[in-house]
Parts: sequence; structure tokens; C-alpha cells
Amino acid sequence: MRGFAARALVGEALEWVDAQAMSLGGEGAPLDDAAGRVLAADLVAGIDVPEFDRAAMDGYAVRAGETTGAGEYNPIAFRLVGESLPGRPFEGHVGAGEAVRIMTGAPLPKGADAVVPAEYAAESGSPAHARAPSSEPRSATIVEITAGTSPGKHVGRRGEDVVAGTRLLSAGRRLRPQDLGVAASVGVDRLEVVRRPRVRLLVTGDELVTPGAARAEHRIFDSNGVMLAALVARDGGIVAERLHVADSRDAIRAAILRPEVDVVIVSGGSSVGAEDHAPSIVAAEGELAIHGIAMRPSSPTGMGRVGGAVVFLLPGNPVSCLCAYDFFAGRAIRRMGGRSGDWPYPRIEAEVGRKIVSAIGRVDYCRVTLRDGKVEPLSVSGASILTSTTRADGFVIVPAESEGHAPGGRVTMFLYDAPR
Amino acid sequence: MRGFAARALVGEALEWVDAQAMSLGGEGAPLDDAAGRVLAADLVAGIDVPEFDRAAMDGYAVRAGETTGAGEYNPIAFRLVGESLPGRPFEGHVGAGEAVRIMTGAPLPKGADAVVPAEYAAESGSPAHARAPSSEPRSATIVEITAGTSPGKHVGRRGEDVVAGTRLLSAGRRLRPQDLGVAASVGVDRLEVVRRPRVRLLVTGDELVTPGAARAEHRIFDSNGVMLAALVARDGGIVAERLHVADSRDAIRAAILRPEVDVVIVSGGSSVGAEDHAPSIVAAEGELAIHGIAMRPSSPTGMGRVGGAVVFLLPGNPVSCLCAYDFFAGRAIRRMGGRSGDWPYPRIEAEVGRKIVSAIGRVDYCRVTLRDGKVEPLSVSGASILTSTTRADGFVIVPAESEGHAPGGRVTMFLYDAPR
Repeated sequence: MRGFAARALVGEALEWVDAQAMSLGGEGAPLDDAAGRVLAADLVAGIDVPEFDRAAMDGYAVRAGETTGAGEYNPIAFRLVGESLPGRPFEGHVGAGEAVRIMTGAPLPKGADAVVPAEYAAESGSPAHARAPSSEPRSATIVEITAGTSPGKHVGRRGEDVVAGTRLLSAGRRLRPQDLGVAASVGVDRLEVVRRPRVRLLVTGDELVTPGAARAEHRIFDSNGVMLAALVARDGGIVAERLHVADSRDAIRAAILRPEVDVVIVSGGSSVGAEDHAPSIVAAEGELAIHGIAMRPSSPTGMGRVGGAVVFLLPGNPVSCLCAYDFFAGRAIRRMGGRSGDWPYPRIEAEVGRKIVSAIGRVDYCRVTLRDGKVEPLSVSGASILTSTTRADGFVIVPAESEGHAPGGRVTMFLYDAPR
Repeated sequence: MRGFAARALVGEALEWVDAQAMSLGGEGAPLDDAAGRVLAADLVAGIDVPEFDRAAMDGYAVRAGETTGAGEYNPIAFRLVGESLPGRPFEGHVGAGEAVRIMTGAPLPKGADAVVPAEYAAESGSPAHARAPSSEPRSATIVEITAGTSPGKHVGRRGEDVVAGTRLLSAGRRLRPQDLGVAASVGVDRLEVVRRPRVRLLVTGDELVTPGAARAEHRIFDSNGVMLAALVARDGGIVAERLHVADSRDAIRAAILRPEVDVVIVSGGSSVGAEDHAPSIVAAEGELAIHGIAMRPSSPTGMGRVGGAVVFLLPGNPVSCLCAYDFFAGRAIRRMGGRSGDWPYPRIEAEVGRKIVSAIGRVDYCRVTLRDGKVEPLSVSGASILTSTTRADGFVIVPAESEGHAPGGRVTMFLYDAPR
């Protein structure tokens, strides 16, 4: 029941996290599962897109040179020899004096080098739009062109979107919906993405019962398990296991030592009391690199390695648990999955409305509201008051060398939600 | 093959979307599936949290009045009568001259009204931390207290986090990880959340083949299907069906009319050509409210209703498809799921580095890069160039009444990704 001998600085703990948490290896993922994942290898185009010249307008494919001088009062007649539709191209060759009806996206027939838009053409004296859909043009059908054109006009050239051999997307990129579209456009149906870190959540505390369970006197409903699971998923991790572990040394040791995860997160029993088993287990079975951090809340936080896993010991107090997760465990998970270690919270600069108090020598995680554009600390905000994080709009970090912020100063505020 | 008679204004189309797309009804969701969902009903606490007074420190539970005058040179002796651990409370009553060893979070025993921290106490002359864990205190054990305290000190009061009857979370709130923790803390294991809109994706185009399929001459790999599926998921919708439909009127009609979705999205064949079947099908089977919009790209966009579903007809050109989705279909899906209709893209204000050109009378969706903090339009950015949306960092919207933005001016830029 004594205190910590010495507390690590937040910066030291972050450096340790960054040294441990490197991007994991790659794995194949179907395109449909790849949104938001991080690319593990450059994507290089294997084909041109499109793979052929195509019409960029509905109209008529012709040899541009034959339209010279065409105008509303000087129509030039072409012989309609066929039709090119997307997926159903005209297979022949466009010869002198010939035109092919063509739809947007359809292959430009051989011989032709331009598309005259439909509004500058009329078939056999009747407007083109009067024809029945897909009617076979009779060999006698004439198209009168009423505007001159030039080679390449209204033609989408082969490779105009993608040239084979181009690097389309670089390793490390977080995949957008349109990135998946571009990958699909070059015929790719799987991408090599950074593997998602597998995480084991261990919630300790004999007083804790699962929400939905019958109430019992002097028991507490566990809030950290569901909160941590949602945070891990937000940060790109997979909750491989989630266990409620009894407050016994043997049970906690066994749960920490189970193999096959990248990260172990233990909630509760992270301090220095007689019932705080986890730190000494990590020290005995692996390395307890950091224990006790100069911050508030979350000071009784530990981290180390056991076997192949990075282990985070988070305080059981729910606000401390959230804060320590966000500072350290979440950063590790984001980095292992190939993302930036930075917080996923939007940040804004805003004026301080009411004094934010801290103490020299520790980093403070202050829950604040944004009222009329001004940042105000919550009046009730102990480490055990989880509702402080639901009433708050976000938080302000006060560095160790600062005593806080006076009204009128400007601070960076992290928003729990995207601004409206 | 004629053009649109008249184009709707973007604002008119948005108004139509907002009138159609209301928040759907509620459904129960387990807490573990509720992160990011939108609450459909207020959450009111059924219990206090905590439900009992508890220790906020490791130490000794005593009657505060009996510590008056205690100090390092004036220790006051108490008789240790038991121990209170989280989940294993001391069942007795603390009488005059008695103390109970207590761990953080453990119930404060009856009779006691304060906790003296462990560092101001020593058992039987030896420091408390030297004892074996959970050792039964002998009746003869004495605790010497070396600091006075006052009633309520280091005690977390019943209800300090939540008082029964309090509204914890309001309907309409998008659920944060810590919100789930707060719900759990009051014993709730399910929440009433807004139902996710069910979406049918129909991709038309006989020239389209699925990525991964063998290449064939004059075919195009479909990029819109996978892109739209990722966009719908991003916006909270469920892709209930995703079909590739042949360019035949009957096939498209049958696919649109299938029941049991909230939204139908058709990609391709949305314009006014002979092969553009979808608009007339929607007009015949329901209501085609908007067809043709004064914007670039995406001008050949339509929307209407068929049966119980809102139908969006998006152009097949992939950039037009993305843009029209984001302006209209995505807005509907977000609103139906209870979210804000606003774009989910972060926005910044930045200086224009190179001229952004538009035309009076239409809204422009300009893909731009952010270079040294300045906004520059992409030089290659046709509606068919999907890579313009992967090379771009985001986009700028030029309103219909503007001819664009000159260098040096400031614009709002929407970022495809969160800023680093």
C-alpha cells in the first residue's frame, strides 16, 4: 500500500510505445473488406484504363478530316454502317464517307478518330433520337453532320485514366472508397494490407458484474470491457478475446500468458497495492518497462512485454482507463495496424472561457465543454466519474511544465466527436 | 440522344432528399454492436452509480471525528477489526476506536465516514504494505493514524457518478465508446438505436466485368460497385443486395422493384440516351422527382421514389458516381440512420494557390491538392478519370453563382482523409 517510487514522464512512456509498436506484416484482403485498412505494398497498375479508345459522348464516330467545313447550312452526309455500344463494339472498319453510331463509353471503331456529338447530326433527315433503340441501321441510312470536328475530339484515349506500370497507391495509405474503385478498375480483387493487431482484453475486479446480470449488493457493473472493445475496434484492432478474470494472481498470470495476440490490455489492479497483481506478474514473466506515470488521471498505468505481446496495465477507474488507453494502448494498436499513432480525435484551437487548473510536473487530461466557442473545464471530473467523459465535448492536455490555462488564452482542444 | 430539357438546381435536389430521408425507427442493439450507432431514445439511469459509498483510496475506514489532533508526533491508535475489499465488503459495523482496512473501490463499512490514506497509517508498528495479502487481521492488531481527517474525505459517495433518474444520453446522439461504458455502468446491456438503412446497389453496364474476372477485349472492370459499397458502409447503411444487372429494360425494372430496402442506388444508364432505361422506369413505376442537375460532374443524376424506397440514379462515370453519391444518396443514408446529413469529410479553410475555374449556373466539384498549405486544382480531372479522386487530397465546391476562385482567395476545402 505504498506509492510509486518514481513516475515516468509521459514522453518516456510514448517513446517506449513507439519503439515497441511497429507496423505488422501484410495479409491479403478482398477489396470488399479493404476500406479503411492500410496498404502494405504499393499498388502498380497491370493494365491501361481504359484499355481502348472510347466515345466520351453519345454521337457518331467518323474520320475527323471528312467533316471540314460542315455547318448548320452545310451538312455533310455520311453513310451509317453500324453501331458501337458499350460491351458490344462495332467490329468493322470505318472507311471514307462512313459513320458509326456510338454511345458514351463504347469502343471507337477502327478507322474513326473522332466523335461528333448527337446534337450535330441527324439520321436520314430525321433526328437521331427518334430512332428505335438498337435498331439495325439500314445500309441506306444517311447521317448528316452539321459541325466540323478534329482528330481525338470527344474520344477518351486508351490509358487516359491509368497507364500500365503506374504506381496507383503507395504502401502506408489508408484506403478510401475511391481507392478500392481504382484498384478494381485495373482488375485487382485483393489488396495486400497491414494485418490488424489482435488484442486480448482482460477485465479484473471481483466486484464487477456483466451489464444485464442481476444486481447484487456491493457489486459494480463493468463499464471498461465494452468501452475498451469499442476503442480497440475504432483503432483498427481485433478483439480476439475478452475475459473477465478473478482477482487472483494465478488467474491473472494465466490470462496474460495465453499466446497468440499482439497486445494484452489488463483493466484494473495496475497500481501498487496488495491486490494489484498484474505489474509483478509482467515483471516476473517478461519486462515491466514503465510503471507509474506522471499524469492525471491514469498515474497507476504500466506497460511491458510478455512473450510476443505488448502488455498494457490500465487503471480500473473508468476515466483513467479511457485516458491511459488513448495515450498508450490505442497508440500502439493504431501503429501496429499501419495507421498514424496520433489521436483519431479532430482538434480545434479555441479560447479558454474558464480557468483550467493543473500542477507542474504532471500531464493533465482535462475534460472540457465547448460553450459559445469557449473551452470550459467540467466542474465534476474525478477519475471515477465516467459521465465526465460523456458530458464533455472533448479534452485539453496540459503539459507537465504548465500550471494550466488562464481565461482568454488559446488552447488546442481534442473533440470526442467530429464537429457539426 | 437529346440533352436534358431543364436541369434542377443542386439546392432543389438537396431539399427533395431532406424531405424524403427521415430518421428511420429504432431497434434494439447489444452494447457491443452499438458504437457509432445513433441513439433512438433517451437513456435514463435506473440506478445510482456507485450504489454505495466506497473508498477512493487504499487505507483505513474510520470515524473521522476520532482522528482529530492526529499527527506524525501524535499518532492515534485504532483497533483493526476487519478488511473491506471490492466485491468482498466488511459486513460488520465500525464502532468507537475501530478501523477497517479498505481498498480503493471497496464499500465503506457502516459506522465509518472517512478513509485515512495508507501513508498516514501503520499497523501494529510495522508498515501496512509489509503484511501478507488478505491476511486476517488478528483482533490484537493496532493501526496508528498519523493525520486527522474529516467526514466524507477519500470517500466516493453513492451516486457521485450517476443519480438514478438522470438522463445520461439523449436521443439522436452518435454513441462514443465511453457512452457504452456509461450505459454498462447502469446495468444496461442493450440500447435502442436508429435502424440502419438497407440499401440495394445495382450496377448496370454490359461492358462491365467483375474485378478478378478474366480480361476480355473491350470490357471494363467495374469500379463503382466496390466504391459504392464502401461509401454506404461508411455512412451507416447496410448493403442488403449488390447486383450486376444487364442493360435491359426488363432486368433493370425487376431489380429496382425488388422489395425490402430503404434505398435503391443504380449506377449507370442514368442519362437521356436510348440505353438509359432507369429514369423512365422510375417515372413509370413511381415518381421521378429530379432528373438532370446543374452541376459538374454528375449532371445526369436522377432521384425519385418507387414503392417504399428512395431511388438514386447515378451516372456510370466513376467520378460522377462518387460525386452524385456524396451529394445526394449518401446524405439520404446518413439522415435515415439518424446522423447529420453533412459530409463526413473534415473541412479546412485554405488559400487558393492556382486558379479554380467554374462556370456560372452550375455547381462544380473540383478535385484539389493541398500543396504547402495552398489549394490547387488537378490538371487532369475529367468525370471518367477516377484516379483524379485518389491523387486529390480533397475537393472544393464552387457554387452556381461563382465563376471560380482566384489565387490568393480563401476557400473551404473538404479533405478525403483526416489531416495528419
